[in-house]
Amino acid sequence: MATVLVVYATNHGNTQKMAAAIASGVTSVSGSQANLKCAEDVTANEVLASDAVIVGTPVIMGSLDWRIKKFIDETCRPLSMQDSLVSKVGAVFASGSGYGAGGNGCELTMLAVLNSFALAGMVIVPLPKRTPGYYLGGLQWGPFGRTSGEKMEPLGITEEQLEVAVHHGANVARITDALAGKNLFA
Amino acid sequence: MATVLVVYATNHGNTQKMAAAIASGVTSVSGSQANLKCAEDVTANEVLASDAVIVGTPVIMGSLDWRIKKFIDETCRPLSMQDSLVSKVGAVFASGSGYGAGGNGCELTMLAVLNSFALAGMVIVPLPKRTPGYYLGGLQWGPFGRTSGEKMEPLGITEEQLEVAVHHGANVARITDALAGKNLFA
Amino acid sequence: MATVLVVYATNHGNTQKMAAAIASGVTSVSGSQANLKCAEDVTANEVLASDAVIVGTPVIMGSLDWRIKKFIDETCRPLSMQDSLVSKVGAVFASGSGYGAGGNGCELTMLAVLNSFALAGMVIVPLPKRTPGYYLGGLQWGPFGRTSGEKMEPLGITEEQLEVAVHHGANVARITDALAGKNLFA
Amino acid sequence: MATVLVVYATNHGNTQKMAAAIASGVTSVSGSQANLKCAEDVTANEVLASDAVIVGTPVIMGSLDWRIKKFIDETCRPLSMQDSLVSKVGAVFASGSGYGAGGNGCELTMLAVLNSFALAGMVIVPLPKRTPGYYLGGLQWGPFGRTSGEKMEPLGITEEQLEVAVHHGANVARITDALAGKNLFA
Repeated sequence: MATVLVVYATNHGNTQKMAAAIASGVTSVSGSQANLKCAEDVTANEVLASDAVIVGTPVIMGSLDWRIKKFIDETCRPLSMQDSLVSKVGAVFASGSGYGAGGNGCELTMLAVLNSFALAGMVIVPLPKRTPGYYLGGLQWGPFGRTSGEKMEPLGITEEQLEVAVHHGANVARITDALAGKNLFA
Repeated sequence: MATVLVVYATNHGNTQKMAAAIASGVTSVSGSQANLKCAEDVTANEVLASDAVIVGTPVIMGSLDWRIKKFIDETCRPLSMQDSLVSKVGAVFASGSGYGAGGNGCELTMLAVLNSFALAGMVIVPLPKRTPGYYLGGLQWGPFGRTSGEKMEPLGITEEQLEVAVHHGANVARITDALAGKNLFA
Repeated sequence: MATVLVVYATNHGNTQKMAAAIASGVTSVSGSQANLKCAEDVTANEVLASDAVIVGTPVIMGSLDWRIKKFIDETCRPLSMQDSLVSKVGAVFASGSGYGAGGNGCELTMLAVLNSFALAGMVIVPLPKRTPGYYLGGLQWGPFGRTSGEKMEPLGITEEQLEVAVHHGANVARITDALAGKNLFA
Repeated sequence: MATVLVVYATNHGNTQKMAAAIASGVTSVSGSQANLKCAEDVTANEVLASDAVIVGTPVIMGSLDWRIKKFIDETCRPLSMQDSLVSKVGAVFASGSGYGAGGNGCELTMLAVLNSFALAGMVIVPLPKRTPGYYLGGLQWGPFGRTSGEKMEPLGITEEQLEVAVHHGANVARITDALAGKNLFA
């Protein structure tokens, strides 16, 4: 039984909606269970008990939300110092208004989370461009929910955008299942 | 007289169009001149003789075009080793099909160029979001010309997208003019 | 009179020591003054009243300290939304134990800060490799104080490492002075 | 039988030495074979026939070597456009003089390779800090061989530095073996 922890912070509910879609993707894979949590509420034991961690963050000023960073600094870092996260699976998703032609900093935002996961020794799952819904809600490192239109009119997260998030959750669950319990790293 | 070198590589002419728009922005600033060059044709002396360098690259597999990297490795690197580029001004722009919700790797592409400029000791000019046309063709680090629609139908670079490029060229020219000839770095 | 705001977070006093060195570099430039502040204590008015902002962060799990991100999210973001930071000067520095052969995530940590500055439309000042002390305490984007030895034995920040920080402060002050009060961006 | 393709470019033989160490790590895992190739010599069929690709690049001006980028642009990109690399495993390593306190751009160099791998839909294997030899030759995203001393005196790659590369090859082989032949992605 693979356990996937889905952690998020949210301001307007958009990242939360994506988190719920990802969790539903996880549970759609036989033998996988999802633990969906707001960043403030996750305990170190919940991280330890998980085979994979998927973190979702609003894109704020071109980087991860400070509440997500606080979770990484205070909850994940002591575990990483003891090498307790090595060989777990890590993945990421994000939402943001997306002003401009390129996502308003979404790429470095996702890489900030993944840089922490790499330091912890976690295997990283990206998002293939062939994934259904990618053209509306995908980025190479994970789902990106763009919540505003070209002129910053708020549109929220649409059903079509959530499709790619569901698949991301299922992808992570399958890869976690294939890796769990094996002796992968020196 | 500030001289701004605009260097590009192009496959379908899109980055070239943006480069021409940027050069026209440079020359719109009184006392500034632009030198517009394909990456293959730039000499080390042209780089040395410039007060600023603006590099434009297609986004290819989420990073800069190999021809741009060859220009950096073979033409710029020997100058950088001798600290000959310190205090020049650097800026970047890019074009690409932009598949997905976030620019298909445009952010790391631009940062690859800027990481080289930082190593060379060059002052970096970003692109403020208030720039006219930003919502159609802007990214925080420079203009990004998205050339395809949501389903990858080719649209090319539109007049509206070029507007932000013209302003980027003018911004760089003004900043170069303010910094040129001064003793800025230890 | 150019005013440079130096903002830091610190755990063991290392980033604070670097911040003080940077502030002393700022004030070594005639006509420049430094405002040295812990991240928790900076007000929006202090940011607005500054011509340049230099942010220093511990490297925590390969990204910026959550307290620095909170300062960016809560104090800088509202100003950036109103385009009030456009054409100010931005720079960065960091400290960390630096385990491994390459700085333990220092590069993405600095770029997280600079991505926020770019979104705000701020001109970025890097650190030329010719800067005295660079080989002991320099990175392309700013001073990096490596506080541990190869086997993680704590060494703290040495006098030699602070030298490069002093120069960074002076570099930023000179560039700020050259740009302040000019109409640089469209 | 998992096949791991190890691709490198080299100027002074350092990246080549690391590549050979990584290949020996791959073959140390029962049932895995390594295909060690210079970037110029790899064919698309060799990439297609591999279950994992590990790319090694000199750090040149803070980004990947242009010959590695040419391999990605011309050999990997057509395969990626057809989604033919999805679910393969990807990893990276680098070497460089490493001037300064933080690796001279090694982090963005590795991420340039990995951004391409993510776009191709490949699972990414990092390097846990507990890996033997990490403190001399490790970075979170893969082995980094620092070839010069603090004052840029050339030291080359030492036996101790190669240790971590051997383990990286073995890690990738084990993870590839666990994932190969499974239906992982939507």
